[in-house]
Amino acid sequence: MDHDDPLTPPSSGLDRRNFLGVAGGGLLLCTVGGQKVEVKSAADVGKVDKAAASVKRPAAAAQKKGSKRERVDDLRFGTPGPAPGGRRKEYWIEAKPVRWNVAPTGRDEWMGKRVPRKRTFTAFVYQQYTAGFASPMGKPRMPGPTLNAEVGDVIVVNFRNGGGKKFDQAVTMHPHGVHYTPDYDGVYLGDFTRIGGFVEPGEEFTYTWEAKPDSVGVWPYHDHGPNHTLNSLRGLFGAIVIRPKGTRPPDVETVHFMHSFPPQVTGFDSLVHCINGRTFAGNTPTVRSKVGQTVAWHVIGGDGNFHTFHIHGHRWKDAAGQYVDDPTLGPNETVSAVFTEDNPGRWLYHCHVFSHQDAGMAGWYLVEP
Amino acid sequence: MDHDDPLTPPSSGLDRRNFLGVAGGGLLLCTVGGQKVEVKSAADVGKVDKAAASVKRPAAAAQKKGSKRERVDDLRFGTPGPAPGGRRKEYWIEAKPVRWNVAPTGRDEWMGKRVPRKRTFTAFVYQQYTAGFASPMGKPRMPGPTLNAEVGDVIVVNFRNGGGKKFDQAVTMHPHGVHYTPDYDGVYLGDFTRIGGFVEPGEEFTYTWEAKPDSVGVWPYHDHGPNHTLNSLRGLFGAIVIRPKGTRPPDVETVHFMHSFPPQVTGFDSLVHCINGRTFAGNTPTVRSKVGQTVAWHVIGGDGNFHTFHIHGHRWKDAAGQYVDDPTLGPNETVSAVFTEDNPGRWLYHCHVFSHQDAGMAGWYLVEP
Amino acid sequence: MDHDDPLTPPSSGLDRRNFLGVAGGGLLLCTVGGQKVEVKSAADVGKVDKAAASVKRPAAAAQKKGSKRERVDDLRFGTPGPAPGGRRKEYWIEAKPVRWNVAPTGRDEWMGKRVPRKRTFTAFVYQQYTAGFASPMGKPRMPGPTLNAEVGDVIVVNFRNGGGKKFDQAVTMHPHGVHYTPDYDGVYLGDFTRIGGFVEPGEEFTYTWEAKPDSVGVWPYHDHGPNHTLNSLRGLFGAIVIRPKGTRPPDVETVHFMHSFPPQVTGFDSLVHCINGRTFAGNTPTVRSKVGQTVAWHVIGGDGNFHTFHIHGHRWKDAAGQYVDDPTLGPNETVSAVFTEDNPGRWLYHCHVFSHQDAGMAGWYLVEP
Repeated sequence: MDHDDPLTPPSSGLDRRNFLGVAGGGLLLCTVGGQKVEVKSAADVGKVDKAAASVKRPAAAAQKKGSKRERVDDLRFGTPGPAPGGRRKEYWIEAKPVRWNVAPTGRDEWMGKRVPRKRTFTAFVYQQYTAGFASPMGKPRMPGPTLNAEVGDVIVVNFRNGGGKKFDQAVTMHPHGVHYTPDYDGVYLGDFTRIGGFVEPGEEFTYTWEAKPDSVGVWPYHDHGPNHTLNSLRGLFGAIVIRPKGTRPPDVETVHFMHSFPPQVTGFDSLVHCINGRTFAGNTPTVRSKVGQTVAWHVIGGDGNFHTFHIHGHRWKDAAGQYVDDPTLGPNETVSAVFTEDNPGRWLYHCHVFSHQDAGMAGWYLVEP
Repeated sequence: MDHDDPLTPPSSGLDRRNFLGVAGGGLLLCTVGGQKVEVKSAADVGKVDKAAASVKRPAAAAQKKGSKRERVDDLRFGTPGPAPGGRRKEYWIEAKPVRWNVAPTGRDEWMGKRVPRKRTFTAFVYQQYTAGFASPMGKPRMPGPTLNAEVGDVIVVNFRNGGGKKFDQAVTMHPHGVHYTPDYDGVYLGDFTRIGGFVEPGEEFTYTWEAKPDSVGVWPYHDHGPNHTLNSLRGLFGAIVIRPKGTRPPDVETVHFMHSFPPQVTGFDSLVHCINGRTFAGNTPTVRSKVGQTVAWHVIGGDGNFHTFHIHGHRWKDAAGQYVDDPTLGPNETVSAVFTEDNPGRWLYHCHVFSHQDAGMAGWYLVEP
Repeated sequence: MDHDDPLTPPSSGLDRRNFLGVAGGGLLLCTVGGQKVEVKSAADVGKVDKAAASVKRPAAAAQKKGSKRERVDDLRFGTPGPAPGGRRKEYWIEAKPVRWNVAPTGRDEWMGKRVPRKRTFTAFVYQQYTAGFASPMGKPRMPGPTLNAEVGDVIVVNFRNGGGKKFDQAVTMHPHGVHYTPDYDGVYLGDFTRIGGFVEPGEEFTYTWEAKPDSVGVWPYHDHGPNHTLNSLRGLFGAIVIRPKGTRPPDVETVHFMHSFPPQVTGFDSLVHCINGRTFAGNTPTVRSKVGQTVAWHVIGGDGNFHTFHIHGHRWKDAAGQYVDDPTLGPNETVSAVFTEDNPGRWLYHCHVFSHQDAGMAGWYLVEP
């Protein structure tokens, strides 16, 4: 159904073959505001962004009626509060362009080699602020802030689209795992879009999400606006950790997104395989612990590929109670490796797909005795 | 071992790169009747179909002896009946060519865009009939009829190959999950083919399959004749639901095949990502339920790709007892999402592989209060 | 970040598209000794091997200090012995080049067709020897010897790099599942390499690995030296089976690696999909059992692809207690199918990814009554 012409060789622009890794067995397609674009080159990215910029606030976001509308589209929803004894966990988060270096050290410490010079591009990240957007909390990071709550709490996210002229298009925050009404789904649905599904540059919207017993776990959140694929691949993602009430977190807890930046996003020659926005050991997160500590790694698929997660010298029980050391995970799926540390030394962790591992999807885990 | 010449550019015919999505990390290869064909163009499809048409009924299907035969090839099997208290669940099913529209509405309701004009091709589906093939039961659908049974029952499928001149080749029904002897395996095995593994156009064959305790679950069935890959991708697939004896089905129960039609099958320009033979929201199944109902979604991989399954606003326990909302599934693997509905509104469900989701592997779920 | 030039068509040498299957959604990249090479042709393979040959023994392997070193890099470790009541399971294994035929019968018994003439190349395998490397134990096989132990045992592998001039580079043995100190991790880590992570041609090294309660299961081992991707794809892999103390093995137990040989490794025209180094039924392992026997299939992903594992006529409980017959597995992930045999006849087992199944990833399972 795609309107690319397969008889025409991919003559100009970036190499389509390099994008296969991005899209998980296909090309990078973006469907935005009535257009479907096969994103092959920087020019195509401009086309998609322009299409995204031209998407008008859907009438439905103002609750108007359309021909295909159903009764459920006219339902009105309130805003939930915490359960008795629960808390209101409030966050201020802005989607914001940021110059991003995929390999600040310039080196792959594992293989002892230099990383090519072109390492910086304009990413799009969720930046946390202090209350009332008074000031940024730390430097921009990728993933965005980890949202923490316990069962019974509500997570309240004061969200601002700071895309500005660079990323002049509506964006959102769509969470997995937590409970929400359609208003707080954070998804652009064309004529059926609800209020939280279309936040234009300069606008703010407050999402309210409930942590219920079946929310316990670790989940991604990400952009789900009209240009969600490109913006997710630019860095608009983060994690939510929901614990049973009164649970102590592990001594060491990390979130690792396994993802990639395609050339369309970076302007580099080819795909960059990353963990948390960085490529190659020494740039990807170096995790540290001590023997005896409880340690939890939460690993989330952040692109269109399938991955596995392996830590040298360690194994752990999966949800089924089986010992594993290299489980599979898909796009926006989470696997957690939870164990009590017993093995000091320097360890490599990595995706076990050869082409990902060799292209930077690896890092250090340092365990003190 | 493939006989394509990698030094020759893929100059003519359809673009090989578009088929990567079909084959799950490889080209579309068909091995039929002693030939292996890399299917790049409509001409190649003709070649494969011609090869399939020329496959002769294997001698072994008549239980003759050959040089490589083993003792197990000479075993004779009977036909099982139901267990005490079990039933005989009888179906009449014909494999039949049908003009198939991948997007009858002509629109993607999610992104509010028109779908390209070329939307119709000749698919190959399992059509259900009333007893004795008296008359078709409803319009042809994809997947074919869902076969239901309880533990202790036998499923009896009176199968007819109605491929005719359009699909002039032996086809079969091969089930997962249920018990069967080699006679009812429904698989072409060359010199080792049993009676149910080669049903020529115009022929009938009766499969008998047992539902035993370890059959409980939801499973695919599909063609496994000499041209199984092409015919599975043309639409020859369906589902089997086996429940413990006396179990009430959920209030709402759906089967969703996540699959794709390659250009070789459709003659379109490129790959169409589908759910149940349709592409883009409004064409893919719109599922409806009410708060308080028990709901079960059974999702099966129908092509050579890996997928994930996500429903907005919902999460459920996987088999390991962990809450998930986006599990991975492989080719002909099933994942089920079972929950009691508690969240009214319009929800999007989709594969979370970006390139699948953006190319039509998404649909609506409408929950009334 | 890759240094391929996407503006240049892949004009000469082997077809890059054929390698997509190898790399699981990307090109075949090798990062060796400070160089990253996109392996497109036999010349590139030579380049990688030359790079691998030129990698010097890391200073760190001799425990010298470097600028980036951390305290954990200076930790000293002993060699563990068995737990009380445990045994010392000793193996002699050499990594060794061997002429390897991917299809000795020359035929695909399933589809009754001939396999192309070019079937032999120089593989790299783990060959088992009697004590003191006195003499080879049987012919070279792929996977290498299965290492067996019970909880409380230590596995001691006397390892020799017999790569010689053909594969003139350091290799290792890196195990999954078992416990080891960084010295016995068997991984090249550049400046941080420990003694077991760099075994040059002609050298020997003794690995000692502990089987602890959380090691119970089936795990891969494989090369993790400076050229690990290419050497793993050449055949340097095998399995470890750890059982609880005093457990009787099943009557029939098999290890199946689902993997592939890329043209860079074989010099053939294209990718060969294999089970245990062989392609097409009759060449891949033919497994035999009798009704009533306990049977265990341990299936491990041996390349960069994702696979599923299906046996006709059979189903089994997965780790979560759910009946399955076609589970997904990723690179170096294991799934086990364990059942009591109840279904006599000739059965096909295969990966359910169409393009793998049709290109040789299938075999026979013969069950006597």
